Amino acid sequence: MPAPRLRILLGSAIAIGPGKADLLEAIDRCGSISAAARAMDMSYRRAWLLTDTMNRCFRDDLVAAAPGGRRGGGAALTPLGREVLDRYRQMEAKAAASLADEMASFQGLLRPEDLTRDSD
Amino acid sequence: MPAPRLRILLGSAIAIGPGKADLLEAIDRCGSISAAARAMDMSYRRAWLLTDTMNRCFRDDLVAAAPGGRRGGGAALTPLGREVLDRYRQMEAKAAASLADEMASFQGLLRPEDLTRDSD
Repeated sequence: MPAPRLRILLGSAIAIGPGKADLLEAIDRCGSISAAARAMDMSYRRAWLLTDTMNRCFRDDLVAAAPGGRRGGGAALTPLGREVLDRYRQMEAKAAASLADEMASFQGLLRPEDLTRDSD
Repeated sequence: MPAPRLRILLGSAIAIGPGKADLLEAIDRCGSISAAARAMDMSYRRAWLLTDTMNRCFRDDLVAAAPGGRRGGGAALTPLGREVLDRYRQMEAKAAASLADEMASFQGLLRPEDLTRDSD
Protein backbone atom coordinates (compact mmCIF):
# COMPACT_ATOMS: atom_id res chain seq x y z
CA MET A 1 0.00 0.00 0.00
CA PRO A 2 1.43 3.35 -0.95
CA ALA A 3 2.08 5.59 2.02
CA PRO A 4 0.31 8.89 1.82
CA ARG A 5 2.78 11.68 1.37
CA LEU A 6 2.54 15.20 2.53
CA ARG A 7 3.68 18.24 0.65
CA ILE A 8 3.68 21.84 1.66
CA LEU A 9 3.04 24.80 -0.58
CA LEU A 10 3.67 28.39 0.27
CA GLY A 11 0.95 30.86 -0.48
CA SER A 12 -1.28 31.09 -3.50
CA ALA A 13 1.41 32.56 -5.71
CA ILE A 14 3.67 29.66 -4.93
CA ALA A 15 7.22 30.78 -4.65
CA ILE A 16 8.15 27.18 -4.09
CA GLY A 17 6.27 23.92 -3.92
CA PRO A 18 6.95 20.27 -4.53
CA GLY A 19 7.40 20.64 -8.28
CA LYS A 20 9.76 23.58 -8.02
CA ALA A 21 11.75 21.95 -5.20
CA ASP A 22 12.20 18.85 -7.35
CA LEU A 23 13.27 21.07 -10.26
CA LEU A 24 15.90 22.81 -8.12
CA GLU A 25 17.27 19.41 -7.13
CA ALA A 26 17.33 18.28 -10.75
CA ILE A 27 19.17 21.43 -11.86
CA ASP A 28 21.67 20.88 -9.07
CA ARG A 29 22.16 17.28 -10.15
CA CYS A 30 22.10 17.78 -13.94
CA GLY A 31 23.93 21.09 -14.24
CA SER A 32 21.53 22.71 -16.67
CA ILE A 33 17.88 23.62 -17.00
CA SER A 34 17.51 21.63 -20.22
CA ALA A 35 19.01 18.46 -18.74
CA ALA A 36 16.89 18.91 -15.61
CA ALA A 37 13.78 19.28 -17.77
CA ARG A 38 14.62 16.06 -19.63
CA ALA A 39 15.25 14.23 -16.36
CA MET A 40 11.85 15.36 -15.09
CA ASP A 41 10.08 14.62 -18.37
CA MET A 42 9.07 18.26 -18.60
CA SER A 43 9.34 20.67 -21.52
CA TYR A 44 12.28 23.04 -21.50
CA ARG A 45 9.83 25.90 -21.73
CA ARG A 46 8.00 24.83 -18.58
CA ALA A 47 11.23 24.28 -16.66
CA TRP A 48 12.44 27.70 -17.74
CA LEU A 49 9.16 29.36 -16.70
CA LEU A 50 9.19 27.68 -13.29
CA THR A 51 12.79 28.76 -12.77
CA ASP A 52 11.97 32.29 -13.85
CA THR A 53 9.06 32.40 -11.41
CA MET A 54 11.32 31.32 -8.56
CA ASN A 55 13.95 33.86 -9.50
CA ARG A 56 11.29 36.59 -9.44
CA CYS A 57 9.66 35.41 -6.19
CA PHE A 58 12.76 35.55 -4.04
CA ARG A 59 15.02 38.42 -3.14
CA ASP A 60 17.73 37.09 -5.45
CA ASP A 61 18.06 34.42 -8.09
CA LEU A 62 17.88 30.79 -6.97
CA VAL A 63 19.32 29.53 -10.26
CA ALA A 64 22.11 31.21 -12.22
CA ALA A 65 23.87 30.53 -15.47
CA ALA A 66 26.95 28.55 -14.57
CA PRO A 67 30.17 30.43 -15.26
CA GLY A 68 32.07 28.73 -18.05
CA GLY A 69 28.98 26.73 -18.92
CA ARG A 70 29.07 24.57 -22.03
CA ARG A 71 27.35 25.44 -25.25
CA GLY A 72 23.63 25.28 -24.57
CA GLY A 73 24.14 26.92 -21.23
CA GLY A 74 24.82 25.33 -17.88
CA ALA A 75 22.95 26.38 -14.75
CA ALA A 76 23.55 25.95 -11.04
CA LEU A 77 21.91 26.76 -7.76
CA THR A 78 23.02 29.97 -6.12
CA PRO A 79 23.73 29.93 -2.37
CA LEU A 80 20.24 31.36 -1.89
CA GLY A 81 18.83 28.59 -4.10
CA ARG A 82 20.44 25.99 -1.91
CA GLU A 83 19.21 27.69 1.25
CA VAL A 84 15.63 27.87 -0.03
CA LEU A 85 15.71 24.22 -1.09
CA ASP A 86 17.16 23.09 2.23
CA ARG A 87 14.67 25.08 4.27
CA TYR A 88 11.79 23.84 2.15
CA ARG A 89 12.79 20.21 2.67
CA GLN A 90 13.18 20.82 6.41
CA MET A 91 9.70 22.33 6.63
CA GLU A 92 8.30 19.44 4.62
CA ALA A 93 9.91 16.96 7.02
CA LYS A 94 8.70 18.86 10.07
CA ALA A 95 5.14 18.96 8.76
CA ALA A 96 5.28 15.24 8.05
CA ALA A 97 6.55 14.53 11.57
CA SER A 98 3.97 16.81 13.15
CA LEU A 99 1.16 15.07 11.27
CA ALA A 100 2.43 11.51 11.53
CA ASP A 101 -0.42 10.34 13.75
CA GLU A 102 -3.10 12.07 11.68
CA MET A 103 -1.60 10.65 8.48
CA ALA A 104 -1.56 7.11 9.85
CA SER A 105 -5.20 7.46 10.76
CA PHE A 106 -6.06 9.15 7.46
CA GLN A 107 -4.45 6.28 5.60
CA GLY A 108 -7.30 4.04 6.67
CA LEU A 109 -9.67 6.14 4.58
CA LEU A 110 -7.72 5.62 1.38
CA ARG A 111 -8.16 2.78 -1.03
CA PRO A 112 -5.42 0.16 -0.82
CA GLU A 113 -4.39 0.44 -4.47
CA ASP A 114 -3.49 3.53 -6.34
CA LEU A 115 -6.24 3.90 -8.91
CA THR A 116 -5.76 7.54 -9.56
CA ARG A 117 -4.46 9.53 -12.47
CA ASP A 118 -5.23 13.16 -11.99
CA SER A 119 -3.23 15.85 -10.25
CA ASP A 120 -4.30 18.63 -7.93
CA MET B 1 2.23 36.26 4.73
CA PRO B 2 1.63 33.01 2.87
CA ALA B 3 0.22 30.13 4.87
CA PRO B 4 1.69 26.73 4.13
CA ARG B 5 -0.68 24.49 2.27
CA LEU B 6 -0.73 20.73 2.28
CA ARG B 7 -1.15 18.08 -0.29
CA ILE B 8 -1.74 14.48 0.62
CA LEU B 9 -0.61 12.14 -2.09
CA LEU B 10 -1.49 8.53 -2.51
CA GLY B 11 1.30 7.03 -4.54
CA SER B 12 2.07 9.52 -7.25
CA ALA B 13 -1.48 10.84 -7.38
CA ILE B 14 -3.00 13.37 -5.11
CA ALA B 15 -5.89 12.06 -3.06
CA ILE B 16 -6.62 15.48 -1.63
CA GLY B 17 -4.96 18.86 -1.71
CA PRO B 18 -5.94 22.50 -1.52
CA GLY B 19 -7.78 22.49 -4.86
CA LYS B 20 -9.77 19.35 -4.14
CA ALA B 21 -10.60 20.47 -0.59
CA ASP B 22 -11.91 23.76 -1.94
CA LEU B 23 -13.94 21.85 -4.52
CA LEU B 24 -15.51 19.66 -1.83
CA GLU B 25 -16.50 22.78 0.06
CA ALA B 26 -17.96 24.34 -3.06
CA ILE B 27 -19.99 21.22 -3.84
CA ASP B 28 -21.26 21.23 -0.27
CA ARG B 29 -22.21 24.89 -0.57
CA CYS B 30 -23.59 24.86 -4.13
CA GLY B 31 -25.30 21.49 -4.21
CA SER B 32 -23.96 20.36 -7.56
CA ILE B 33 -20.68 19.79 -9.35
CA SER B 34 -21.61 22.17 -12.15
CA ALA B 35 -22.52 25.02 -9.78
CA ALA B 36 -19.37 24.36 -7.77
CA ALA B 37 -17.30 24.50 -10.97
CA ARG B 38 -18.85 27.85 -11.89
CA ALA B 39 -18.25 29.20 -8.39
CA MET B 40 -14.60 28.20 -8.66
CA ASP B 41 -14.23 29.47 -12.23
CA MET B 42 -13.29 25.97 -13.34
CA SER B 43 -14.58 23.92 -16.26
CA TYR B 44 -17.24 21.35 -15.48
CA ARG B 45 -14.98 18.72 -17.02
CA ARG B 46 -12.13 19.55 -14.66
CA ALA B 47 -14.39 19.60 -11.60
CA TRP B 48 -15.83 16.27 -12.64
CA LEU B 49 -12.36 14.75 -13.14
CA LEU B 50 -11.14 15.99 -9.76
CA THR B 51 -14.25 14.58 -8.10
CA ASP B 52 -13.80 11.28 -9.90
CA THR B 53 -10.17 11.10 -8.75
CA MET B 54 -11.22 11.65 -5.15
CA ASN B 55 -13.93 9.04 -5.39
CA ARG B 56 -11.38 6.53 -6.72
CA CYS B 57 -8.67 7.42 -4.17
CA PHE B 58 -10.77 6.80 -1.08
CA ARG B 59 -12.47 3.68 0.15
CA ASP B 60 -15.86 5.07 -0.76
CA ASP B 61 -17.22 8.01 -2.67
CA LEU B 62 -16.72 11.47 -1.18
CA VAL B 63 -19.32 13.00 -3.48
CA ALA B 64 -22.59 11.37 -4.48
CA ALA B 65 -25.46 12.28 -6.72
CA ALA B 66 -28.03 13.89 -4.45
CA PRO B 67 -31.18 11.78 -4.12
CA GLY B 68 -34.05 13.54 -5.79
CA GLY B 69 -31.63 15.89 -7.48
CA ARG B 70 -33.00 18.35 -10.01
CA ARG B 71 -32.54 18.05 -13.73
CA GLY B 72 -28.84 18.53 -14.40
CA GLY B 73 -28.02 16.50 -11.33
CA GLY B 74 -27.40 17.66 -7.81
CA ALA B 75 -24.46 16.39 -5.79
CA ALA B 76 -23.62 16.34 -2.11
CA LEU B 77 -20.83 15.24 0.18
CA THR B 78 -21.18 11.79 1.64
CA PRO B 79 -20.43 11.33 5.36
CA LEU B 80 -16.97 10.11 4.29
CA GLY B 81 -16.56 13.21 2.14
CA ARG B 82 -17.30 15.42 5.11
CA GLU B 83 -14.92 13.43 7.32
CA VAL B 84 -12.09 13.67 4.79
CA LEU B 85 -12.65 17.40 4.37
CA ASP B 86 -12.75 18.00 8.12
CA ARG B 87 -9.63 15.96 8.77
CA TYR B 88 -7.80 17.66 5.92
CA ARG B 89 -8.60 21.12 7.28
CA GLN B 90 -7.47 20.03 10.74
CA MET B 91 -4.16 18.74 9.38
CA GLU B 92 -3.71 21.93 7.39
CA ALA B 93 -4.20 24.02 10.53
CA LYS B 94 -1.85 21.86 12.56
CA ALA B 95 0.88 22.09 9.91
CA ALA B 96 0.48 25.86 9.76
CA ALA B 97 0.86 26.08 13.54
CA SER B 98 3.81 23.70 13.55
CA LEU B 99 5.63 25.70 10.84
CA ALA B 100 4.76 29.19 12.03
CA ASP B 101 8.31 30.06 13.10
CA GLU B 102 9.93 28.63 9.97
CA MET B 103 7.43 30.42 7.78
CA ALA B 104 8.08 33.76 9.44
CA SER B 105 11.79 33.28 8.86
CA PHE B 106 11.32 32.02 5.30
CA GLN B 107 9.28 35.09 4.53
CA GLY B 108 12.44 37.16 4.74
CA LEU B 109 13.81 35.39 1.67
CA LEU B 110 10.85 36.37 -0.49
CA ARG B 111 10.58 39.53 -2.46
CA PRO B 112 8.26 42.04 -0.77
CA GLU B 113 5.86 42.20 -3.69
CA ASP B 114 4.22 39.30 -5.36
CA LEU B 115 5.64 39.28 -8.88
CA THR B 116 4.63 35.75 -9.70
CA ARG B 117 2.16 34.29 -12.10
CA ASP B 118 2.87 30.63 -12.39
CA SER B 119 1.53 27.76 -10.36
CA ASP B 120 3.27 24.69 -9.00
